Amino acid sequence: MDTIDKLTEIFKEFPGIGERQAKRFVYFLMSRNPNYATLLSSLILDLKKEVTQCKDCFRYFLSHEKSNLCNICTDPNVDSSILMVVEKDSDLESVRKSRTYNGKYFVLGGLVPIVEKTTKSQVRIKELENKIKSSPKTVFGEIILAFSLSPQGDHTDFYVRNQLKPITEPLGIKISSLGRGLSTGTELEYSDNDTLKNALKNRQ
Amino acid sequence: MDTIDKLTEIFKEFPGIGERQAKRFVYFLMSRNPNYATLLSSLILDLKKEVTQCKDCFRYFLSHEKSNLCNICTDPNVDSSILMVVEKDSDLESVRKSRTYNGKYFVLGGLVPIVEKTTKSQVRIKELENKIKSSPKTVFGEIILAFSLSPQGDHTDFYVRNQLKPITEPLGIKISSLGRGLSTGTELEYSDNDTLKNALKNRQ
Amino acid sequence: MDTIDKLTEIFKEFPGIGERQAKRFVYFLMSRNPNYATLLSSLILDLKKEVTQCKDCFRYFLSHEKSNLCNICTDPNVDSSILMVVEKDSDLESVRKSRTYNGKYFVLGGLVPIVEKTTKSQVRIKELENKIKSSPKTVFGEIILAFSLSPQGDHTDFYVRNQLKPITEPLGIKISSLGRGLSTGTELEYSDNDTLKNALKNRQ
Amino acid sequence: MDTIDKLTEIFKEFPGIGERQAKRFVYFLMSRNPNYATLLSSLILDLKKEVTQCKDCFRYFLSHEKSNLCNICTDPNVDSSILMVVEKDSDLESVRKSRTYNGKYFVLGGLVPIVEKTTKSQVRIKELENKIKSSPKTVFGEIILAFSLSPQGDHTDFYVRNQLKPITEPLGIKISSLGRGLSTGTELEYSDNDTLKNALKNRQ
Repeated sequence: MDTIDKLTEIFKEFPGIGERQAKRFVYFLMSRNPNYATLLSSLILDLKKEVTQCKDCFRYFLSHEKSNLCNICTDPNVDSSILMVVEKDSDLESVRKSRTYNGKYFVLGGLVPIVEKTTKSQVRIKELENKIKSSPKTVFGEIILAFSLSPQGDHTDFYVRNQLKPITEPLGIKISSLGRGLSTGTELEYSDNDTLKNALKNRQ
Repeated sequence: MDTIDKLTEIFKEFPGIGERQAKRFVYFLMSRNPNYATLLSSLILDLKKEVTQCKDCFRYFLSHEKSNLCNICTDPNVDSSILMVVEKDSDLESVRKSRTYNGKYFVLGGLVPIVEKTTKSQVRIKELENKIKSSPKTVFGEIILAFSLSPQGDHTDFYVRNQLKPITEPLGIKISSLGRGLSTGTELEYSDNDTLKNALKNRQ
Repeated sequence: MDTIDKLTEIFKEFPGIGERQAKRFVYFLMSRNPNYATLLSSLILDLKKEVTQCKDCFRYFLSHEKSNLCNICTDPNVDSSILMVVEKDSDLESVRKSRTYNGKYFVLGGLVPIVEKTTKSQVRIKELENKIKSSPKTVFGEIILAFSLSPQGDHTDFYVRNQLKPITEPLGIKISSLGRGLSTGTELEYSDNDTLKNALKNRQ
Repeated sequence: MDTIDKLTEIFKEFPGIGERQAKRFVYFLMSRNPNYATLLSSLILDLKKEVTQCKDCFRYFLSHEKSNLCNICTDPNVDSSILMVVEKDSDLESVRKSRTYNGKYFVLGGLVPIVEKTTKSQVRIKELENKIKSSPKTVFGEIILAFSLSPQGDHTDFYVRNQLKPITEPLGIKISSLGRGLSTGTELEYSDNDTLKNALKNRQ
């Protein structure tokens, strides 16, 4: 394998990139000014140096001082009485950019597979339990489970609820899930039964 | 214009059919067995003969006895305390097939344009008002506005609410709208702000 | 099955139309002005009455006098020394509209399946042979095989050539096939090997 | 601009990558094992170090000995009597992989804009002229212009032909262009007029 092949293999792991486009990336880099490659290469190393995983919410963030806590977890203006549990960093970014939520986050690190047995090793359920247990009694009033609306998302919602219940119930912490119904662009004519059912049940 | 051109023009009015496919339909008919054309032609006439618009809910339905009321409006098992207002027949069919709703319907006949002035002539708002006014006082407990989630759907929701309020408020009739939030397949990472906002607001 | 279901079944046979769109067609017809249905129904019967299959080239055409020959076959300005063999009526229309060819046509009525045995019953190879045999010796100088560029199209080209050879060779009739190479929009970067091979072989 | 924003900007220049996917790439890198980033970074530097532009055909290639000539230009088995002029490296790779051509290449470095004036600075037409002039008289028997089938590709074909003619005609060098007609998957029914015209003109 020469450098072209090796780089193609690396680019193939990028999200949404197949063999063909991976190769195009390599040819693109070959034909660009050498400074471009140097800059890209050093920025990737910078990113690696600066990136830290927050020990509280487990999101990745950039830190020059190698702080252990991200800027959301240390922000005094964040509402620390609500905790939103999301699957992954990009979900967190999406909610954050929508400016519709001002509470804390927790990145579970994945969805819970419907069939597999070794669930706990895959998602940070133990870490989530510890976070809630170790918090001063009155901290969280509500935990919002915010997973994508898919069979695996539903299963994860169900699983996390069951795991947390023994901890949250005695503490009086409410567990909620994101609302369901029509989303932007939904046309009644083409809606599936579940969406209609949820839209009807949650009418207001 | 020969028959090919005339038929092409007619087929072009079919939902989702452009010039090219309209012409393909004509050639398809030309090359098919003559019995096929005869059958199609007579079924279209049958449909025309059998179709009636229900004088109560305004949906189109088939009636051999030329009844004025459709089978939903005359069904004693239908819950006559709820009325769902939909834009068009195909929306009604979609809800009906989902088996998630067992109340009455009303087909508004369109959405209310955001800019135009001549709204009333376009949708059956007067007919809807009359239906509610003329019903025995206790009939409807709730009117559900069930429009697609688009700017025009939102505008129609707003318009119908405002028009009905003077009638429904004195009668204690509740007006609701379909719930909003995540719909089947929604991925948090790619959700628009409105959907996230609704999902968060309507969490439960 | 009521009329709605029957019509849905009929529309499902239209080219490119599935169950869902077939049903939408029926609801569309139900909600349209009755005159529309009457017009559509009578135009379909007109088409059936007027359509004739040309006994010479086998294309379908409209004829008020129930002539047996289409307007191409009777046009004195058409170059009767070339015969283009096409798969179906819509291919013929496409070539005709391009105004790049002014010769005769023959509609084979299908492509020859690669695996099946009962070929002759499927396509009009016998009719094509008879047409060539029965023509005055000097009529055709060239027969152009004009099939789509697919495995089945290639197979049909091969099959027709072999079948005609015993007839055309003694008469000195040339058999040609449409040229191959880059077609409009072809990008070298994304071309398949066959297209590149043909483009290179047929360079000029 | 932090490192995330800077890297996003860089990835946005990758072929076919928009803002959204560029950002996903950055988050992907953040969440991957640090070794992945190190490997990617060093492979990009390797590529930069190894890449050379062939001084003869102007393609980019990898060379550990920093040779000035690529492996095609130095391959004694390549047919040096034919020269194929392509727009860009990826076109060359596509032809090469098809194993349908065994001659020399020349990468023009772009297509000639139809309206602009400053053409010569954009493509390597001077370099191409020099290459032909400086070659021993008998070297090239044919120059194949191999551009994509688009208005700009056609214009480039026309432009290069005109520029080369004063040089090639006295030397008896033939200039050809890739053949045109049906390409893989072309259906007659949906073909544009130019493709039908070329397919008919180039029939054989």
